[in-house]
Amino acid sequence: MASTNIPSDLPEMEYRFVGRSGLQVSAISLGGWLTYGGHVDDGTIPDAAHACLKAAYDAGINFFDCAEGYAGGESEKVMGRAIKKFGWKRNDIVVSTKIFWGSGNSAFSSGPRNKINQMGLSRKHIIEGTSLALSRLQLSYVDILYAHRPDPLTPMEEVVRAFNHVINQGQAFYWGTSEWSATQIEEAWGVADRLGLIGPVVEQPGFNLLQREKVEGEFEAGKLYERHGLGLTVFSPLAGGILTGKYLDGVPEDSRLKKSDDQYIQSVAATVGTDEWNKKMDAVRGLKAIAERLGTNLPALAMAWVLKNRNISSAITGASRPEQVFETVKALAVVKKLDEGVMEEIEKVMGNKPKGAMMFR
Amino acid sequence: MASTNIPSDLPEMEYRFVGRSGLQVSAISLGGWLTYGGHVDDGTIPDAAHACLKAAYDAGINFFDCAEGYAGGESEKVMGRAIKKFGWKRNDIVVSTKIFWGSGNSAFSSGPRNKINQMGLSRKHIIEGTSLALSRLQLSYVDILYAHRPDPLTPMEEVVRAFNHVINQGQAFYWGTSEWSATQIEEAWGVADRLGLIGPVVEQPGFNLLQREKVEGEFEAGKLYERHGLGLTVFSPLAGGILTGKYLDGVPEDSRLKKSDDQYIQSVAATVGTDEWNKKMDAVRGLKAIAERLGTNLPALAMAWVLKNRNISSAITGASRPEQVFETVKALAVVKKLDEGVMEEIEKVMGNKPKGAMMFR
Amino acid sequence: MASTNIPSDLPEMEYRFVGRSGLQVSAISLGGWLTYGGHVDDGTIPDAAHACLKAAYDAGINFFDCAEGYAGGESEKVMGRAIKKFGWKRNDIVVSTKIFWGSGNSAFSSGPRNKINQMGLSRKHIIEGTSLALSRLQLSYVDILYAHRPDPLTPMEEVVRAFNHVINQGQAFYWGTSEWSATQIEEAWGVADRLGLIGPVVEQPGFNLLQREKVEGEFEAGKLYERHGLGLTVFSPLAGGILTGKYLDGVPEDSRLKKSDDQYIQSVAATVGTDEWNKKMDAVRGLKAIAERLGTNLPALAMAWVLKNRNISSAITGASRPEQVFETVKALAVVKKLDEGVMEEIEKVMGNKPKGAMMFR
Amino acid sequence: MASTNIPSDLPEMEYRFVGRSGLQVSAISLGGWLTYGGHVDDGTIPDAAHACLKAAYDAGINFFDCAEGYAGGESEKVMGRAIKKFGWKRNDIVVSTKIFWGSGNSAFSSGPRNKINQMGLSRKHIIEGTSLALSRLQLSYVDILYAHRPDPLTPMEEVVRAFNHVINQGQAFYWGTSEWSATQIEEAWGVADRLGLIGPVVEQPGFNLLQREKVEGEFEAGKLYERHGLGLTVFSPLAGGILTGKYLDGVPEDSRLKKSDDQYIQSVAATVGTDEWNKKMDAVRGLKAIAERLGTNLPALAMAWVLKNRNISSAITGASRPEQVFETVKALAVVKKLDEGVMEEIEKVMGNKPKGAMMFR
Repeated sequence: MASTNIPSDLPEMEYRFVGRSGLQVSAISLGGWLTYGGHVDDGTIPDAAHACLKAAYDAGINFFDCAEGYAGGESEKVMGRAIKKFGWKRNDIVVSTKIFWGSGNSAFSSGPRNKINQMGLSRKHIIEGTSLALSRLQLSYVDILYAHRPDPLTPMEEVVRAFNHVINQGQAFYWGTSEWSATQIEEAWGVADRLGLIGPVVEQPGFNLLQREKVEGEFEAGKLYERHGLGLTVFSPLAGGILTGKYLDGVPEDSRLKKSDDQYIQSVAATVGTDEWNKKMDAVRGLKAIAERLGTNLPALAMAWVLKNRNISSAITGASRPEQVFETVKALAVVKKLDEGVMEEIEKVMGNKPKGAMMFR
Repeated sequence: MASTNIPSDLPEMEYRFVGRSGLQVSAISLGGWLTYGGHVDDGTIPDAAHACLKAAYDAGINFFDCAEGYAGGESEKVMGRAIKKFGWKRNDIVVSTKIFWGSGNSAFSSGPRNKINQMGLSRKHIIEGTSLALSRLQLSYVDILYAHRPDPLTPMEEVVRAFNHVINQGQAFYWGTSEWSATQIEEAWGVADRLGLIGPVVEQPGFNLLQREKVEGEFEAGKLYERHGLGLTVFSPLAGGILTGKYLDGVPEDSRLKKSDDQYIQSVAATVGTDEWNKKMDAVRGLKAIAERLGTNLPALAMAWVLKNRNISSAITGASRPEQVFETVKALAVVKKLDEGVMEEIEKVMGNKPKGAMMFR
Repeated sequence: MASTNIPSDLPEMEYRFVGRSGLQVSAISLGGWLTYGGHVDDGTIPDAAHACLKAAYDAGINFFDCAEGYAGGESEKVMGRAIKKFGWKRNDIVVSTKIFWGSGNSAFSSGPRNKINQMGLSRKHIIEGTSLALSRLQLSYVDILYAHRPDPLTPMEEVVRAFNHVINQGQAFYWGTSEWSATQIEEAWGVADRLGLIGPVVEQPGFNLLQREKVEGEFEAGKLYERHGLGLTVFSPLAGGILTGKYLDGVPEDSRLKKSDDQYIQSVAATVGTDEWNKKMDAVRGLKAIAERLGTNLPALAMAWVLKNRNISSAITGASRPEQVFETVKALAVVKKLDEGVMEEIEKVMGNKPKGAMMFR
Repeated sequence: MASTNIPSDLPEMEYRFVGRSGLQVSAISLGGWLTYGGHVDDGTIPDAAHACLKAAYDAGINFFDCAEGYAGGESEKVMGRAIKKFGWKRNDIVVSTKIFWGSGNSAFSSGPRNKINQMGLSRKHIIEGTSLALSRLQLSYVDILYAHRPDPLTPMEEVVRAFNHVINQGQAFYWGTSEWSATQIEEAWGVADRLGLIGPVVEQPGFNLLQREKVEGEFEAGKLYERHGLGLTVFSPLAGGILTGKYLDGVPEDSRLKKSDDQYIQSVAATVGTDEWNKKMDAVRGLKAIAERLGTNLPALAMAWVLKNRNISSAITGASRPEQVFETVKALAVVKKLDEGVMEEIEKVMGNKPKGAMMFR
C-alpha cells in the first residue's frame, strides 16, 4: 500500500499490550467517528474518513474503535467498507465495537418500542446487537467487544455470561467495559472468577490532564491494574479541545466544546466563566509554557502526558484531516521529554493529582 | 406499519423486566393459540390470528408465547409465518415456546411409539424438540424456552444441563418453567448454582383472582422472588372466562369453561352448582359491583388486578378478534385506580388471600 | 440393669436408619416432655418421667427427643439427670434436642429483650443455644440437633453454616429440621451441596392417619426421600389422642385435644362439631372396626399404620405412665397385619390419601 | 436489674437485623469510648462509663461496640469488666470489636518494632489481635469482628480467609468492615463467593446529614445492600457535634470538633471559616428551624434522620453522662415525624443528596 504522504519526521509507532492480555495495539488509535459528519447511508466512505483511515494505517496505527451507538451504526459501516476497499488483512488490524445503545440503529424499529430490548446489556441485546454490528462491519468477529456503559438493570452474571457466549461463538476475542466504576468492574471479575469465565480485560474511560480521577484515583485505589491486569483504551486525551488551548481566549457558543456529546465534556462546558473554569485556564496556560520550553506544543504535550502513563494501552483520537492524525502521532516523540522533573512541574501547575489507595499502616 | 384501527383511547403499553433478568416484555402479551380453531396445516395464517397479531403489535405488545404442544405445533407455524409476512424485526419482539408435549406434532411419529422420547424433559427431547420448534417458527432462536411441565421422571441435573446446552447453542436466550412447584424450582436453582449453570428466570403459572395460591402463597413463602429474582408470565388472567361474569346466570354444557384444556379450569368446571361454585359467583358479583363503581367493567378490573402485582412480568391473553386485544390493553389504565382502599375491598369480597412465609419469631 | 416389669409379650424393638444416614434409632422413641407436668427446677427427676424413661429403655427404646423450648429447657435437664442416674452409656443412646425458641429458658433474660437473638436460627442463637442446651443435658454432644422451625428472617446459608459449625465443634453428629416445608429443605440442601457442607438428614413433622399431607404428599412430590435420603422422626402418631377413639362420644372442653400446644392439633380442635369433624369421627369409627377385626385396638392400629411407612425412622410418643410406653411398643407387632388388603381398606375408610408427584407423561 | 432512673417518656427500643443476617441489634448502640477520658489501666470501670453502660442497657440497648485501637485496648477492658460486674448474660448482648491498630496496645511491644505485624490485616495480626482482644474483653467470642480499615498491603484472599478462620474457631459469629470502599467490599465478596467462604455482613462508616456520600451514593450505586444484604452500623450521627448546633456561633480552638481523631471530622474542621463552612452552618440553621417546628430539637432530628434510613442497622453513639444516652434514645420517637414532606424539606435545606446508580437506559 502506497504511503506517500507520511511526514518524514513521523516517529515510529509504539505497540502496547492491552493490559495483561496478549493482544497488542498501537499506543495511538483512531475512533471518534462522530466528527466525520455525513451520516448518509449511501454505501460510500466519506472522503475525510477515507483519508484519515489511510493516514492512520500508514502511520502504524492498527487499532480502530467503533460502537453500535456511534452515528446510528454508521461508523461501523464506514469501517467495514474501508477494510474491504484498502484490502487490509484481518490479522493486521484490531477492530473493536461497543454494545449498549442499539436503539438509534436503522436495524432496529423506530417509535416508542425502540428502547425495549435494544438498549442495555441484557443477554438478548448483547447477542443480537453484536450480530448486527458484525453485519455492518462485514466482519465475522471483532477483536474487542465493549459494554458501552454499565447496566444496573441487568444482573452482572447475565452480562458476563453473554459476553462469554459471544466470545465462545467466535464473534469477539476479548471483552471490555466503557465508563464502568471500579466496583462494577470488580463485580464482573468476581462473577467471572467464580464461574470460571473470561473477565473484562480493558476499560475505556475519558482520560486527560483535566480528567484524572478514574484512571489515577478510583482504579488505582481499587488496585485494578495490579489485580486484574486491567488495560485502558482512553478517549478525550485533549479534553474535547480544551487542552489544545483554543479556549484560552474565550469559548464561542458554537464551539465543539459546547456541542460535545460526552457527558464529562458537557459538565466542563457548563462551568465556562466560573472560578473553576478560570483556574483551569490558568493551568492550561502553565502547561503551554512548559510545552514551549520543551520545544513542542500544548496538544502534543497533553497527548504525551497521557501516553507516559504505562497503564494506558492506547489513546483514541478522532481526526477530520490526515494532518491531524500525523500531528497526534508526533506526540509519541514528546513522551521521552517528560522526565521526573517535568512531571513534577506539571503536577504543580495542575494541582489535581487524585488520591490512590489509602494506607492506614 | 400502518395501524389505522387502534382505538384513540388505547393506553400506552407498559414494559416490564422478566424477573431480575435484563429482558423486557410488554405487561400484556399474546398466547392462548388454541382459540384460533383451524388447525389445518396449509401454510396460511388464519384470518383471526392475522388480525389479532397485527392488533397486538400495533398496541405495543412485543411478547408472543407459543408451545410445541399448542395445536400440535400449529401455533409456532402461524407465528413464524406472521413474523415473515409482517416483516417484524427479530430484535423488536420477544418470542417464547415451550417443550414437553412433542407427541402431538406431525414432526413426530404417530402410533404407540409417539409418546416415547417425544414427551417430557429428557436431554434428548429438550434438544430435539427445540430444533423442531425453531424450524416451525422459522427462527434461529427463541427468547425464552420454557419447560412446559415438571418431569419427575428425569433427573433435575439432566434438565438443567439440557436447557443450558440449548442456550449455549444460541437457540434460546433464557429458560423458564411452567406449572412447576416451588420445590422443583428450588431444586433447579440448587443444581444450577452448584454447577455454575444458568437457572430458570421465569415461571408461567395460571394466576387470577380465583387462583392465587402459587403466586401469592407457595412462591412467596419460598421467597423465590427475593432469592432467585423469579419473574412470572401468567396465563388465565380471567379464569377461563369466569371473571368476565358470563357464567353468573348459569353455565351451558357447551361453554368454553366446560371444554377448557387447562387442568385448573377443568377442576373448577367440575364444581359448577356446588356451594363452592355459588360462593365463587357471589364473589364475582361483588367484584362486578366494585368495577362498576370505578367506572370500568369486570374483565378490565380482573386483568388490572393481575397487572397490579409487581411480581407479574406479563399477563398472557388469548383473543379471537382484534377488539378483544384492545379491550385487554385498556385494562392498563385501570391499574392506577386500584389504590390501597380498593385492594382491601377486593380482598374482603374474595376472602381467598393465601398465606405467605410463616414467621415463628 | 434390672427390667423386671417388662410385659412378657412385648415385641422386640425394631431399629431403623435415620433416612440414608448411618445412624440407627428405635422405631418408637420417647419425647413429648410437656406431659410430665411438674416443671419445678429442683434438680430432681419427676417420678413419672423416671418410670417412663426406665420403661422405654428397658423396652429397647434408644432414642430420646428434647428441645430447648420444651418446658423452658426443663425436658433437657430431666433427660440429663436421668442419663446420669441410670448410668446409661452415652453410645447406647441417641439424644436429640432442637433449637429455635430459647426465649423461654431461664438461661436467657426475661422482659422485652428476651426475644432478641434468643429465638430463631441466627448463627448467634444456634451456637449459643446449643451450648446452653448441652449444659442442661450435661452432655458434650447430642446425636441430632434439629432446627425446631424454619426461620425466613435468617438467610439459609447462615443457618446451614451454623449447624455445620456446631457439628464441626463436635457438639452434634447430625442436623435436622422440624416443620420445614419441602422447599425450605430443598433450599438447605442446595446450599449444603454447593458449599460442600452437611445437609439436614432428618425432618420432624406431625404424622398420623389424619395428617398425611407433608409426609405422603409434599415430601413425596418433591422426591425428598429419594434424592436427599431424608429420614423422618414423626410426632403426634395418634393425632393428639383423636386416634385413640376417646373423642368418639364428644370432646370435653378441658380435654388434651382442646389444650394442645401443637398448631395442627389446635386447628383440628377448632373444627369440633362441624361436618368436617363428624366425617373424621366416622373414619375413626371405621378404623376402630378394622382394628377389632384384626384382634387389636384402635391406638395400636393407628401407631402400626405410621410404622408401616418405611420413610418413618421413628415415631415419637409421649407417656405419663410406663404402661403407656409398653402399649405403644406392642403396636410393633401389629405392623405385619397391615397387608395390602388391609391398607386398601384403611384408604377407603379414610379417603384422604395425598397426591404425590404429578406425572405429565 | 433495677433501672430506677429511666425517664418515664423513654420510647421503647427498636431492634433491627444487621443487614440480611439473622442477628438483631438495637437501633441505637453504644461506642465512642474515647470520650471516657481516664485511660488508666487500674482494673476499675470509670464512673462515667459505669453509669452510661447501665443507662444504655436499661434503655434497651443491646449492642456495644469496641475496637482494639480505642484507647489502646482500654475500651475492651472496661466493657469486659462491666459485663462481669452487671452480671449481663452473654446471649442478651451483642459485643463487637475491631482489628487493625494493635500497635497502641500494651499487649504489644513498644518501640519501633510496634508497628511491625501489630497493624493491618495480615493473617498473623487478625488472629493474634483477636485473641488479645478477647482476653481484654474476658469473653470467648465477640458477635461481630470488624476490619477497622482496609489494608491494601495484604491480599484480600488472606484477609477473607483469616476472618473465616477466626469465625471457624468460634471467636466471632460474623465479620464486617469499617471505612472500606464499595470496591473493596465487592472484592471481599468476590473472594468469599469463589472460595465458598463467609463474606462481610456489615460495614461501619460515618453517616450523618453532612456526610452522606458512602451510604447513599457509593454503596447504593454499587447495589451493595441489594446484592450482598450489607448492613450498616454507623458512627458520627451528629457529625462530631456539628449537628447539635453548638458551632453555629463560632468554633473554639479547644472544642471537640477541632480535637477529633476522626479523619472526616478533621477534614471538616479544617474548613472552619470558609464559604463551604458557612454554607454548612446555614444548612444547620435550616435544620434547626425544621426541628423546632416539629416540636423537637436539632440533635434529635439529626439522629432521627439517620434512623429513618432502613439500610442503617444501628447508629452508634458515644456518651459521657447517662442523660445523653436517654436523650439519644428519645430520637426514636422523632422518626415517625419524618414523613415524605419533611424529608423533602430537609433535602432542600441540605442540598447534598448523593447520586446513586446511574442508569443509561
